[in-house]
Amino acid sequence: MTLPTTAMRAFTGTVLRGKDIPAAYRTDRSGYAPTGEPEALVLAANVDDVRRAVTTAAEAGMSVVVRGAGSGLAGGAAAGAGSLILDVSGLNRILELAPADELAVVEAGVSAAALDAEANRHGLCYAPDPASIAISTIGGNIATNAGGLRCVKYGVTGDAVLGLDVVLADGQLLHTGRRTAKGVAGLDLTSLFTGSEGILGVIVAATLRLRPVPIDTITVAAYFDEVEPAAAACAAVLAARVRPAMLELLDESSLREAQDLLGVRGESAGAFVVAQTDGFGARAEADLVAKTFGEFTSRVRVGDDPEAAGELLAVRRAALPALERHGRVLIEDIVVPRSQIAAAVRRITEIAAGYHSRINTFGHAGDGNLHPIIVVPRDDARAYPRAVAAADEIFATALELGGTITGEHGVGVLKRAWLEREQGPAALRTQQAIRRALDPNGLFNPGKAL
Amino acid sequence: MTLPTTAMRAFTGTVLRGKDIPAAYRTDRSGYAPTGEPEALVLAANVDDVRRAVTTAAEAGMSVVVRGAGSGLAGGAAAGAGSLILDVSGLNRILELAPADELAVVEAGVSAAALDAEANRHGLCYAPDPASIAISTIGGNIATNAGGLRCVKYGVTGDAVLGLDVVLADGQLLHTGRRTAKGVAGLDLTSLFTGSEGILGVIVAATLRLRPVPIDTITVAAYFDEVEPAAAACAAVLAARVRPAMLELLDESSLREAQDLLGVRGESAGAFVVAQTDGFGARAEADLVAKTFGEFTSRVRVGDDPEAAGELLAVRRAALPALERHGRVLIEDIVVPRSQIAAAVRRITEIAAGYHSRINTFGHAGDGNLHPIIVVPRDDARAYPRAVAAADEIFATALELGGTITGEHGVGVLKRAWLEREQGPAALRTQQAIRRALDPNGLFNPGKAL
Repeated sequence: MTLPTTAMRAFTGTVLRGKDIPAAYRTDRSGYAPTGEPEALVLAANVDDVRRAVTTAAEAGMSVVVRGAGSGLAGGAAAGAGSLILDVSGLNRILELAPADELAVVEAGVSAAALDAEANRHGLCYAPDPASIAISTIGGNIATNAGGLRCVKYGVTGDAVLGLDVVLADGQLLHTGRRTAKGVAGLDLTSLFTGSEGILGVIVAATLRLRPVPIDTITVAAYFDEVEPAAAACAAVLAARVRPAMLELLDESSLREAQDLLGVRGESAGAFVVAQTDGFGARAEADLVAKTFGEFTSRVRVGDDPEAAGELLAVRRAALPALERHGRVLIEDIVVPRSQIAAAVRRITEIAAGYHSRINTFGHAGDGNLHPIIVVPRDDARAYPRAVAAADEIFATALELGGTITGEHGVGVLKRAWLEREQGPAALRTQQAIRRALDPNGLFNPGKAL
Repeated sequence: MTLPTTAMRAFTGTVLRGKDIPAAYRTDRSGYAPTGEPEALVLAANVDDVRRAVTTAAEAGMSVVVRGAGSGLAGGAAAGAGSLILDVSGLNRILELAPADELAVVEAGVSAAALDAEANRHGLCYAPDPASIAISTIGGNIATNAGGLRCVKYGVTGDAVLGLDVVLADGQLLHTGRRTAKGVAGLDLTSLFTGSEGILGVIVAATLRLRPVPIDTITVAAYFDEVEPAAAACAAVLAARVRPAMLELLDESSLREAQDLLGVRGESAGAFVVAQTDGFGARAEADLVAKTFGEFTSRVRVGDDPEAAGELLAVRRAALPALERHGRVLIEDIVVPRSQIAAAVRRITEIAAGYHSRINTFGHAGDGNLHPIIVVPRDDARAYPRAVAAADEIFATALELGGTITGEHGVGVLKRAWLEREQGPAALRTQQAIRRALDPNGLFNPGKAL
């Protein structure tokens, strides 16, 4: 099972074999790496390279592991023995931007930030904004159906995907979807491939919905004594019919760590919430957010100008890097019904105590999407197994509260054992049947996602 | 192939056979009825009846045609020889309404209007609003991924579906999706079944996203001399970053017919556009809509109070019933990129002339979704074949302009021949493979959708 030199010459892009493959290609940002060495790495230069890589791997009996920027958090792009790694980050052209139709056609390796910047030139924006926006590829964002900070108003990556170009297991190129705002012809293949984590085909291009840049943006933040009133304030904002573009929560220690990293002598609090409103009603909504927060705390701050808004948001964005100073981090990604946010945060605090682990929680309160960050000190060999056990309890908690094990990072390798517990045997069987129908020989990402 | 009397007794709901089945059950609102008589009709009283109907039909060698209110427009619920009609409209309970989590769990037979009314009691609404909202069932809305007037801001039915309960071909009950705002665990089965037109399973219940009732709603209408400036005005509104909740267009004759039906001596015009803005920015957006319309016509009307708004909207809602006075109507449903609306309307006018057919066009300009209505006089035997030929040219036009053959009604029987022309052989093969994987014996709705 090695790639013949003649096959290598057929590619326009670079091909590496065995020991020549850099170690970084075996893993993603989760740090998970399977045993064994990958057979080949194809740095695809175009769609023909992708098709050739798929058929070549099939003929050689290798599996295909597709990769964009390698910024995944669930091990979905990790590659081990017997695999051909197919890096599509070189397919990075914006093929079309049609302002009147509010859409763009891009290759899979384009970053969301690059597309957003190009759209901005036409008064438009690409709404999905995963934290990795500057580095991750849109192909990877689609493969994981990535979320981000603006989902509460603008939805997840999938809500912006109108159509896809996908290379199938037989090397054929499939076009799904449409260029129109609506369309219901046939089964929704676009949504099926979105979030499929590399197990059904290789996404090589996408038709994406753009939106107007919001006409106004206002930031409102508040410090609360405890998590309960913070969660209640978030619920009250939504019940007041406000649709914030962002509604983020940090627990006590996430706030402290973030302030410490930024070197600001900020206020201490049991919880911190930062909201943004935008659009034609931004001012009225921001006033109502501030008033509503004021029913739960006296410490409300409104950022009217971009600088003040940036300072309030910086705390939220600093939360993860601040924790990464203290060791390896397990970035978890549960979602609970919004009414259960406070219960989930409290329960995570108990789990941390029970496993002598440090777990800080922040996340997208507007969606009920929490990121408990388990810090694993590098000098404590017993900390990692404790962290894994704590993560399992966090998943169990999410399910007990009516939630899910992943809101935006995917199942990958790391949460595979939990999928059937969440969805039941009929759902797993149905998904496996679809996988077999599209990839009968198990070419794509075996051992992942399902 | 008849249903044994013993099998009939096992159902809680009513079962009819052969000649006892009312003729209306053989067709839907499209008027299409296949040849041959259906074998049995099961009026399901609960999920067990649905499961029993599926396994009984499979054992007896019958196909299963699922049906809600029978308000479909593409023949998807039409039933002929060898079929068991499974009517799920009796499953009509709202099982849960959770205001804090902004969701409802309903059985498939509930109407969208009934759910919306119940949600209103909690300050919430169910956003999807197909024209058939008062009579159609949510199960049918999901099976066709139905649209409506508010899609331009709030999306289609699928955008409100969080999870489904589906009876599969083996009679097993599948739960898909989640109760949370986000969630990416596993393949997106929820979207796969949404819009699947009864070919993959029987939708028996759904978890649906609710939204706050908009805080304010303002209606703006305008009369234009021709279709081109009307379409340009719609494009200008969207380019001005307004997100209207509704943006509807009527051509000259649709306007005249609607005014005639309503008995109002309205203004004549080459095109009529009615927009609604809502939410915290409704007033600012309405002002900008009126100003933008004013750049293309001097005849702009703003409906500030509900009564005035209702009068402006009534014209739009009267357009279809007005045309139904003149004969059988073929209700087409194309979508074009928004930049092609004027081109599409002009082309449809030419097609009407070429086929000596009466075709009036109105639709959802904000989405580029047009409903050309072909009127077939009942006293002209040659009008129907001409209408069908004209419809084919309309489909071809949609594809030429980069659009789709159906925006919200589905493929059913009537547009099957066009699906491959729109999507290509790889997309059709992929969809067929998924259909076989989930329904290997072709039990569900054979001859439909694909």
